[in-house]
Amino acid sequence: MEKFELDILGCGSATPTTLHNPSSQVLNIREKLFMIDCGEGTQLQFRRNKLRFGRLNHIFISHLHGDHCFGLIGLISTLGLLGRTGALVIHTVAGLENTLRPEIDFFCKDNPFEVKVEVFNPKVSEVIYEDRSVSVKTIPLLHRIPCAGFLFQEKQKEAHLLPDMIRFYNIPVRELAKIKQGADFVTEDGKIVPHGRLTIPAGPPRSYAYCSDTAYSEKIIPVIEGVDLLYHEATFADTDKARAKETGHSTARQAAQIAKMANVKKLMLGHFSARYPDNNILLEEASEVFPNTVLANEGLREKL
Amino acid sequence: MEKFELDILGCGSATPTTLHNPSSQVLNIREKLFMIDCGEGTQLQFRRNKLRFGRLNHIFISHLHGDHCFGLIGLISTLGLLGRTGALVIHTVAGLENTLRPEIDFFCKDNPFEVKVEVFNPKVSEVIYEDRSVSVKTIPLLHRIPCAGFLFQEKQKEAHLLPDMIRFYNIPVRELAKIKQGADFVTEDGKIVPHGRLTIPAGPPRSYAYCSDTAYSEKIIPVIEGVDLLYHEATFADTDKARAKETGHSTARQAAQIAKMANVKKLMLGHFSARYPDNNILLEEASEVFPNTVLANEGLREKL
Repeated sequence: MEKFELDILGCGSATPTTLHNPSSQVLNIREKLFMIDCGEGTQLQFRRNKLRFGRLNHIFISHLHGDHCFGLIGLISTLGLLGRTGALVIHTVAGLENTLRPEIDFFCKDNPFEVKVEVFNPKVSEVIYEDRSVSVKTIPLLHRIPCAGFLFQEKQKEAHLLPDMIRFYNIPVRELAKIKQGADFVTEDGKIVPHGRLTIPAGPPRSYAYCSDTAYSEKIIPVIEGVDLLYHEATFADTDKARAKETGHSTARQAAQIAKMANVKKLMLGHFSARYPDNNILLEEASEVFPNTVLANEGLREKL
Repeated sequence: MEKFELDILGCGSATPTTLHNPSSQVLNIREKLFMIDCGEGTQLQFRRNKLRFGRLNHIFISHLHGDHCFGLIGLISTLGLLGRTGALVIHTVAGLENTLRPEIDFFCKDNPFEVKVEVFNPKVSEVIYEDRSVSVKTIPLLHRIPCAGFLFQEKQKEAHLLPDMIRFYNIPVRELAKIKQGADFVTEDGKIVPHGRLTIPAGPPRSYAYCSDTAYSEKIIPVIEGVDLLYHEATFADTDKARAKETGHSTARQAAQIAKMANVKKLMLGHFSARYPDNNILLEEASEVFPNTVLANEGLREKL
C-alpha cells in the first residue's frame, strides 16, 4: 500500500523538557513529506527519524506561539547549506513573515532557494493545498491567538488492473487509463465487460486530522468526522481542567470526548504539559471515554 | 575550591547532526553562569546538564552565524514562561538586535524581564564585562564575518584566614577583611604579626579562553597566553586544510599549534564538522603537536 504515515518529532508543550520536544510532526503521503508545526530542534529530530530533507516542500504552521515555529529558521538555514534549490512553502496565519523574513534575509542571504509564505484565514475551514494525492483543509481551533488545525484527506486512488483479465479480453493500452478510473470495457462485438471484472478496487482513501492547540470545541466535529487518525492536544489532566480552559487548552478526557463524538477511528494525544512526568495519567483518562487512544512520543511512526 | 567549571552544551558546526548540537557552553564561576554562544536546542541541553536558569544573567555571542545564536529566542521565551524578572544581558557584535528584538516583541511580549543587548567591537581586545570574581575580555578572531572569542579571567581571590591564629592573637572582627586582603596585624603592644602567619593563600586565579569560529591566527596568542584551558575550534582534519582556510576555520593540528605557541595548560577541541563520524582523527592530529588535548562533547563538564 502506498505510504500514508505520521512521524512524531515533538509532542511537548511550551516549556521544553528533557522528555519531549516542542510540537512538530511529518506526514509522509506517497513519499511526499508534509511538516506540521516546527518547534525548536525540529531539524534534529527530523534527522533522528531518518527522514529526507529533499522530500519536504510544504510546512503547515498552526499558530504563532514559539513552541510551534522557533525551529523554522534553523531548518531553513540547514536546507540552504545542503544546497536545496526548489521553493519551500510555509502555510500559516498572518504575522509570521514579519519576524521570519528579516531572519532569512540576514542569516540565509546566500540560500539558493526561495521561501514562500502563504497565509490562510484560520477562522474558516477551507482547502489550502491540493495535489493529485491529497488535499489539506484548515480546521478553525479555539485558542488564545488565531489558530487552525489541518485535515489531510487522501484522494480516491485508481483501481488496480488485473493483468490476466486485460490479456484475456485483449484490451488495447489506450483503454487502460479509463478503466482504472472506473470505465467498463466494450468488446468489438459490443459486449460489455464491467469495470469490476477487470480491476480490484484501491483501498479507501485515508485521512488525518491535527488539532493543536485548542480548547474543547465541538465546532470542529463536522470537519474531522470519521477520520482514520485524530491528533488532538491533551495538555492537561482532569485535575487541571480549570487551567486548561484558562489557557485555551484541552484535557485528555476532552480530547477523547471530541474523538468519540466525531466517530474517528483512532485518537493520538499530544502537546503534553511539562507538569506530568508520566503521561499515562492522560492515556488512562482519555481511554475511559475513547478506548482506541495512544500517546504521541518522539520517534513514533504511525502507519495509516 | 570555588567553582570554575565549563559545561559543553554543543560542539558541532553549522550543519546539525545526530552526534552534536550547534555551539553553546556554560561557564560556572562561583555559581554564576555565563553562557557562550547559543545555537538551536541550547535550552534543552542546558536542562539535560541540570544547570539552573536562575543563575544565568549574561550570554556572550561570538558572531552572527545561525549555529551560534538561533537558540536565543527559545531560551528567552522559556525564561519568560518560568517567570524570570531580572534583566538578561546579551553581549554581542552589532546586528543581532535587528532580528532578535522584533522576535522578542512579537513572541515574548508578556515577558516579565528585560533583555539588554550590549554591543562590543570584535576588532579589538577589551574588557566587556567585570564583576568581583571575573573579567571577560574579547579576543579578535579571523572569520568570514566579524567574530570574537572570549577570555574569562578569575580575579585574585582573598587569602583564607586560619581560625586558630585569629583566636590566638585575639584579632578583632573589624581587622579581618583587611587581613584577608593582605594586611599584617599589629598587636596592642606594637608587635607585627605578618599576613602569611594568619592566612593560607588562595589558589591561583584561573582562566579560560573560547576561540570559535576562527581560521588559524597567531594574533590571538598574546591574549590567550598561558590560560588554564583553551577551547579552540577544530572544524576540519588535515585532509581538509584547504577547505578550512577557504571557510575561515581551523584544522585540529592548527588549533594545537596555537595552544603550543600560547603555552596554554590544556586544549579542548570543538566545532566539529559533520563530515567526521568519529572525531578521534581530530584528537590524534592535534595530540601530535600538543599532547594535553581533549575532545569537547555534549554533556562534558570540565573543572578548572
